Amino acid sequence: MAAPEDSLRKALADKQSEVENQGNQVRSLKAGKAAKSEIDAAIEALNALKLQKASIEEDLQATLSSADGSVNREAFRQAVSNTLERRLFYIKSFNIYGGVAGLYDYGPPGCAVKSNVLAFWRQHFVLEENMLEVDCPCVTPEVVLKASGHVDKFTDLMDFCNDKLQKDLNITAEKAKELKHVLAMLDDFSAEELGAKIKEYGIVSPDTKNPLSDPYPFNLMFQTSIGPSGLIPGYLRPETAQGIFVNFKDLYYYNGNKLPFAAAQIGQAFRNEISPRQGLLRVREFTLAEIEHFVDPEDKSHPKFSEVAELEFLMFPRELQMSGESAKAIRLDEAVAKGIVNNETLGYFIGRVYLFLTRLGIDKKRLRFRQHLANEMAHYAADCWDAEIESSYGWIECVGIADRSAYDLRAHSEKSGEALVAHEKFPEPREVEVLVISPVKKEIGLAFKGSQKNVVEALESMKEKEALH
Amino acid sequence: MAAPEDSLRKALADKQSEVENQGNQVRSLKAGKAAKSEIDAAIEALNALKLQKASIEEDLQATLSSADGSVNREAFRQAVSNTLERRLFYIKSFNIYGGVAGLYDYGPPGCAVKSNVLAFWRQHFVLEENMLEVDCPCVTPEVVLKASGHVDKFTDLMDFCNDKLQKDLNITAEKAKELKHVLAMLDDFSAEELGAKIKEYGIVSPDTKNPLSDPYPFNLMFQTSIGPSGLIPGYLRPETAQGIFVNFKDLYYYNGNKLPFAAAQIGQAFRNEISPRQGLLRVREFTLAEIEHFVDPEDKSHPKFSEVAELEFLMFPRELQMSGESAKAIRLDEAVAKGIVNNETLGYFIGRVYLFLTRLGIDKKRLRFRQHLANEMAHYAADCWDAEIESSYGWIECVGIADRSAYDLRAHSEKSGEALVAHEKFPEPREVEVLVISPVKKEIGLAFKGSQKNVVEALESMKEKEALH
Repeated sequence: MAAPEDSLRKALADKQSEVENQGNQVRSLKAGKAAKSEIDAAIEALNALKLQKASIEEDLQATLSSADGSVNREAFRQAVSNTLERRLFYIKSFNIYGGVAGLYDYGPPGCAVKSNVLAFWRQHFVLEENMLEVDCPCVTPEVVLKASGHVDKFTDLMDFCNDKLQKDLNITAEKAKELKHVLAMLDDFSAEELGAKIKEYGIVSPDTKNPLSDPYPFNLMFQTSIGPSGLIPGYLRPETAQGIFVNFKDLYYYNGNKLPFAAAQIGQAFRNEISPRQGLLRVREFTLAEIEHFVDPEDKSHPKFSEVAELEFLMFPRELQMSGESAKAIRLDEAVAKGIVNNETLGYFIGRVYLFLTRLGIDKKRLRFRQHLANEMAHYAADCWDAEIESSYGWIECVGIADRSAYDLRAHSEKSGEALVAHEKFPEPREVEVLVISPVKKEIGLAFKGSQKNVVEALESMKEKEALH
Repeated sequence: MAAPEDSLRKALADKQSEVENQGNQVRSLKAGKAAKSEIDAAIEALNALKLQKASIEEDLQATLSSADGSVNREAFRQAVSNTLERRLFYIKSFNIYGGVAGLYDYGPPGCAVKSNVLAFWRQHFVLEENMLEVDCPCVTPEVVLKASGHVDKFTDLMDFCNDKLQKDLNITAEKAKELKHVLAMLDDFSAEELGAKIKEYGIVSPDTKNPLSDPYPFNLMFQTSIGPSGLIPGYLRPETAQGIFVNFKDLYYYNGNKLPFAAAQIGQAFRNEISPRQGLLRVREFTLAEIEHFVDPEDKSHPKFSEVAELEFLMFPRELQMSGESAKAIRLDEAVAKGIVNNETLGYFIGRVYLFLTRLGIDKKRLRFRQHLANEMAHYAADCWDAEIESSYGWIECVGIADRSAYDLRAHSEKSGEALVAHEKFPEPREVEVLVISPVKKEIGLAFKGSQKNVVEALESMKEKEALH
């Protein structure tokens, strides 16, 4: 790897740490209710760091592009996509009506490829591993996606800073360069930060020239309603996994009430992207193939791990990313033994995904497994790895493999009142002494009169120790 | 076949003719602006005939049920569906939240069956016939479905008369029997007729006891909007065929600008049914597999017709239905030769569908091809046949095979301004004398001054004969 690239990666990682530290400081100042001036100063410093980070990213990108030597990535990509479009591998959907951003058809050769890939996926994962396949509707009632958190949190900030705006702005060259950086890092901003930037640059609506409203979170789900009365609000599913979670009880029963087991689903998913881009990469409707593997949280060993243990491929653990190094070849058993990969089951699936992708024909040198940084993961996730493929758009996430704990099952249990749990039979019977609280309602009624119900509820909800006390 | 069944079929066909004649009379009275009293009397007579027809249908249904002898259809169906549900062939979707009417999941064995059926469909039709497969999004902008007629016409009358209402009504036994007939023939009523019936029976809202509004057409498409601004109205596609039609130009080009060719699509379709019913038969989301075969309207012969010509199976042509007879075995080449089936291409596809269904395992004795009656077909259709399978719900349409003429291509050409047409190269060059109108703009300008543009346009739009004159 070229030397300038390495040093830029290192600088980027350092800056990332600085941004994180400063971010923590801002949060702790806010939590400690510090003086407004102090908080503002800290935010100012944070924004400056973010700008510096964006600048390094830009330099790195430029270095990577020029390192490509004679091949001009952009021109090459254009040539490939022109050929694919001309041969109807894919077609802009509804083209005779001008098309719709982010919607594409597959033409005859594209359909053949898709159908072969899906058949291979089903063979490689579902059939070879005896997974339980399900096929659920795209139309999903709100209550399901409320429980999963999608109704409240599956959002992007509505983003008013597009190219058109940039051109319309009447600002100095220096400010323009700075603005370019700001645009590059929009994804990292909170709604408040973005609002402040819009005011700072005097950005107005391109059409009306009126000031813009503060940015607000925009839900990425397509909304609809179910039934003639329109009374059941619904969405098009943004992922297929929820269909598996809500069926957990039936699938667990189907599996003979035993863990572990895996369920899989292939189907359409929908995301109403604010600005679809990068060809077929960020689109508004696509086919997802997902697996949910349910395992005893206290025993994440995998009986078939030995079959993938000796695979060696490019891994990019958190530590290497933070220290500015690049991905390196690691044996899977070593990665699990050293705790780089959290557990055997996660390791097994990383290995199976590696086999799937390379058997599909992905170049091993352009495939790596990148671990999520701590701040990329949801708080309930134990570990998360993305299979990334290097394309003309850079390294692109193609498969996500996460240990999500029992987050989704818990959420649906709570919302539906249906216990989505598994029971384990111990190898040996154990005798356990348990305190059972059986309130004697008659006596409590006499003693507490009108408050009887409250008292009984309080007693019943007590933990064992508490009750003994 | 049992004798009472035959005579009932005959009576039903006679009554159907009477209903049609009377319907024509009402229309011609309306068109001729006859006196209101005369029109009302004719409508009254029409409704009476419809009631009589409904009564015969009911008797026929009862005869068919009792003809089943020892097997109790309803109990048998219940037993089968219980087993299928228990073994997770299918599952009520979102069951832990109480489910949503008309939405079902396939569980593991259901997925296996579905995946095998689709693979066989693709093999039998797409691969064996070199069809052009496409894969288009479910989310469809309004303009496409406006052109196809779905926005304006894909409706059902919102239907307030359900079982609950029937029970709530406080009417005499005689009126109740009549009401039962009315309920049985709701599908035949226009909005006005249905509104009149609601008033006649004094039907009120079961909850509020207020009078009901007049029934109105309810569009069966799920509505959504595309993009963050919500400015692109859209729907979930009610069929996959439109995705083929809008791609006609590209597919025709892909086929070397030659007819005939066929395009196919497998994918989800969505219909927001007012009252989903009959298990998996009338649901709100389902997988469709469709073929559109494009053929020269002046030559509908099919080069491979001989491969299916000798197939003989149950056909139920229009004439047999009208004369109250039942379906009978007819050889396909005979059906085409006698004009029972409109043309060779239509006959070829009927034969291929027969082979597909019987190879899937459908019992030949419970499979028939029923021709649409004249009043069932759209006005632009030349001929239409349904493959019907006899199930515990009676004869159920499973495949529709229609010669739709170029209706859809014309509609999209008009709306989009993009000519969706095919050109034929004659085997021999022909010399044709054509009058070409080339207005001499300068002279016209001098003669007509300000009206020059209008005159030129009028000249250019003239037909040849008109211009010569």
